[in-house]
Amino acid sequence: MAAATSAAWAQRLAGVRGLLLDVSGVLYDGGEGGGAPIPGSVEAVARIKQSGLKLRFCTNESQKSRDKFVGLLQRLGFDILVNEVTSPAPAACRILKERGLRPYLLVHDDLRSEFDGMDTSNPNCIIIADAAEGFSYQNLNKAFQVLINLENPVLISLGKGRYYKESDGLMLDVGPYMKALEYACDVQAEVVGKPAPEFFQAALKEMGLEAHETIMIGDDIVNDVGGAQRCGMRAMQVRTGKFRPSDEHHPEVKADGYVNDLAQAVDLILQYAGK
Amino acid sequence: MAAATSAAWAQRLAGVRGLLLDVSGVLYDGGEGGGAPIPGSVEAVARIKQSGLKLRFCTNESQKSRDKFVGLLQRLGFDILVNEVTSPAPAACRILKERGLRPYLLVHDDLRSEFDGMDTSNPNCIIIADAAEGFSYQNLNKAFQVLINLENPVLISLGKGRYYKESDGLMLDVGPYMKALEYACDVQAEVVGKPAPEFFQAALKEMGLEAHETIMIGDDIVNDVGGAQRCGMRAMQVRTGKFRPSDEHHPEVKADGYVNDLAQAVDLILQYAGK
Repeated sequence: MAAATSAAWAQRLAGVRGLLLDVSGVLYDGGEGGGAPIPGSVEAVARIKQSGLKLRFCTNESQKSRDKFVGLLQRLGFDILVNEVTSPAPAACRILKERGLRPYLLVHDDLRSEFDGMDTSNPNCIIIADAAEGFSYQNLNKAFQVLINLENPVLISLGKGRYYKESDGLMLDVGPYMKALEYACDVQAEVVGKPAPEFFQAALKEMGLEAHETIMIGDDIVNDVGGAQRCGMRAMQVRTGKFRPSDEHHPEVKADGYVNDLAQAVDLILQYAGK
Repeated sequence: MAAATSAAWAQRLAGVRGLLLDVSGVLYDGGEGGGAPIPGSVEAVARIKQSGLKLRFCTNESQKSRDKFVGLLQRLGFDILVNEVTSPAPAACRILKERGLRPYLLVHDDLRSEFDGMDTSNPNCIIIADAAEGFSYQNLNKAFQVLINLENPVLISLGKGRYYKESDGLMLDVGPYMKALEYACDVQAEVVGKPAPEFFQAALKEMGLEAHETIMIGDDIVNDVGGAQRCGMRAMQVRTGKFRPSDEHHPEVKADGYVNDLAQAVDLILQYAGK
């Protein structure tokens, strides 16, 4: 992107009172030993909190429970609490309860505790999440066998991301495996998480702000930026995480701003948002 | 299906001079120890050969090389030779040579020998086949990383079947994994095998018959029956293998006949085809 002028940023950021932050690829990159913070992001989160702007973490993280995930981020130095995080597993649990669904869980072992107390006997739906190494042929096939034998097949996917970035390269996310089961059983998954509007709206409600007062910052041009914009929010893309240069020329989604990293985003917001 | 009358079968089968037989789910069901013949199929193949009708095996088998696959079928009692089989791997090799493609192979170890002599250094395309247990997260992710980094991504899939039947249940075929890579990298796979018209036409040419003289017998309503009919052949579906009762009310494909198994198909053909 050609560098925007001060006037342009002032216009783009006027009236912003709160931030929704994606986590993976914005705060840190996962990888061996838990991953590493993206330079400047620990300080950027601290500066938002000191500024008086509202803040909520809005993540599709579905490989770990919120407890484990937040514990990891705290060890990496971030000022973050479990009750500041909007993530798909609790939203999925609400749906299961409302509709009397008993899930078969194709999820990572580190996520299972989010479903404690759910009836998983005689399953009548599949929950699929980022199982990573848990996506063995055997495990995917078991979920397929359950799904194809349901009279009314229900497939709930925690996000539909294509891939994410870890320190040793791009890694397949839940989306491709969701597509595999959709094709195998000729069903359409219900997505819980970004970019579903209900998910962004829940995060806004938890933060206590309206869409037009809020800016989303993420590394995913479609699920973070496009999803937030469709809900009436502004959205910036960072050039960290899974960002690819072609994202700045995406055929369908144009961010309200492209920045090098979260630190630069926070610089601009603190300078121009006008609290 | 309501039982068809003799006159109906005579009309449907008039002028048939050759058969294309699908293998898995028609001749045998795979499974532990190699699987087991479907009752009556060994004898049915022998009767076709004695009859003077032409015969060719037209399979999307991509888990084993033709040598291994035919060896297995011979051990199960079938009268079958390697040069009677049309399968996707040799067709894929012709494409690789014609287009100067160097494949990364996401295939079962038992298929690799089909690609002996192909240059697999510095790959510029992916070949995906029924890798079964080889579809680990790590293996699919490696193929994804190669594909997403290609300037002109080429994904060649040996078939696109959803699933097949083994003795202990339905098993995911290559199609769902092809869809996963398509979605992850936003590409469209090229399918080599049924239902691609080129593949059926190659089988017809190898058999030396015209489409209107040939009938396909398979357990897959879309890839066997629909694919063959689009090439001008007739096609029967057997109620073995992956057949499901809903196939007889498929919204898009109607077979020229539904029969209990290959034995019944051969009974009818020998009675009504009129050599």
